[in-house]
Order: sequence, then structure tokens, then C-alpha cells
Amino acid sequence: MNDPDGRPVLEDLAAEECLKLISDGGIGRVGFATPSGPMVLPVNYTMHDGTVLFRTAFGGPMDQDLSTGVPGVEFKIAFEVDSLDAAAREGWSVLVQGAAHRVTSEEELAAVQGTPVEPWAGGERRLYIRVTPTQITGRRITR
Amino acid sequence: MNDPDGRPVLEDLAAEECLKLISDGGIGRVGFATPSGPMVLPVNYTMHDGTVLFRTAFGGPMDQDLSTGVPGVEFKIAFEVDSLDAAAREGWSVLVQGAAHRVTSEEELAAVQGTPVEPWAGGERRLYIRVTPTQITGRRITR
Repeated sequence: MNDPDGRPVLEDLAAEECLKLISDGGIGRVGFATPSGPMVLPVNYTMHDGTVLFRTAFGGPMDQDLSTGVPGVEFKIAFEVDSLDAAAREGWSVLVQGAAHRVTSEEELAAVQGTPVEPWAGGERRLYIRVTPTQITGRRITR
Repeated sequence: MNDPDGRPVLEDLAAEECLKLISDGGIGRVGFATPSGPMVLPVNYTMHDGTVLFRTAFGGPMDQDLSTGVPGVEFKIAFEVDSLDAAAREGWSVLVQGAAHRVTSEEELAAVQGTPVEPWAGGERRLYIRVTPTQITGRRITR
């Protein structure tokens, strides 16, 4: 594993390629601050007009624990998507950092409610969270 | 998808079951605060004496950006592991929240250097990070 010739090669990805990799949606992991420390949760997401869109529950950790706690106020978020093969040690990961907000206005709700994003965990997850990227970085690992 | 009978069922997992699920190690995602906001990165981890152990690069985001920035000082971290089938909408996720520290003492380095945890991205990733769980939660989703 420590043979220099056998080591995985790490390559930085351009933002454009990152966006391509995550464009199909699927499962991502969202990281955010809470009063008791950082939190990371899996979500089912879709891309919508260059933003990351997912659904969660009112009163859940994405609703009540966020440091802002105020509808309409933006908060910083990290959103990670990857496709990694643990056995082959190959794959890629993309990190979107940006400003998230709860979708609360009638107008924006109408715009996103037609998008095909089902909440991962089921149940009454009617709170839409939308992330506007400020930075998109990614890495590809190959042998 | 919105048929009440077809919805996934969400079940909270006990800490003991969570530990069993993540005991084999593999790929996890670590979330932590940086001066510019939250960050989430994939890591290759192993469990070691009830702690989460992984390796990263000196001078990398896990080293320079952590709010403490001081070797030996603990910082709050979120560590997430999951096994999710996007198509079937089934699987589980475990969230470990706890205190992380850089492994710097000779004694602790000697204890962890024999563990089978290879850095995901290769290269000279000699900085060991160890997370002592303070809270372990998990969810299982079935249909």
C-alpha cells in the first residue's frame, strides 16, 4: 500500500466538471453547524437552476438546530457528493460550500415543488432547503 | 412515491447497533467547522478502541482550517457512515458526534500506527485524527 508506484493519484477537479458529476442528483451528505457541534446527514438531492435542492422535516435537525433558526435567513452549509470504490481506491468527491435557506416564499415554493426530489427518509418532509454554491471543489482519485 | 402505504419507514437505531454497523471501517464523511464555514470530506476510517481513527495530510483542510488549529486541543466533529440504496430507498446511516484530536504524542502514535487505516487519497497523509464519540445516533430506512 505504501509503494510509491502503487499509490492513488489525487487530481483536483474544475468547478465545471464537479457540476457535471453531481448534475444527476441522488444521495449527498449535508454538513452544518448546530449549537452542540457539527452535524452531517444524508439527503436525497436534485440540482435546480444551479442550486442544490433537498427536502427535510419541519422541526428536524435541519430546521431547529441551525444556528440562525430564522426562516428566510441564510446559513452556511457544506454539501458533499461522492462516488468512491473502497476496494479499488478509486472515485471522486465534490464539495459544494454555500449559503442555504429554507424555501418559504409562495413564489419560490411554486418553482421548486415540481422538481423530482423526494425526501430520503419519507414521512412529512415538506421543508425545502436550497443551497446556492459559493465554492465548488472536487477531487478525483485514480491509480 | 407519496402513497402512504409505499413510504419508507424510519427507525432510530440504538448506539450499540450503530457501533456494530460501523465496526468494520471503510469510507465515512467527516464534517467540521472552518473559518469559512462547514466542510465535509470523505475519509477512510477504522475503529480503534471505541474511537474513530483516520488519516489526513499535514497542512490539509483537516489540519490548517480547524478552528482550534492547535495540536493536542480537541475540536468538535461529526462523522457519518452510511449504506444507502438510492434506487430501493433502503439503508442506514450512523452519525458519530464527538471530540477529535490530532494524534501527536509518541505514545498514542505508537498505539495507532499499527492499525489498518490507509488514507483515502494517498500521498503523505501522516496526520492521524482520532474521534472520541460523545453521541452516536443512527437511522434505518426500510419499506
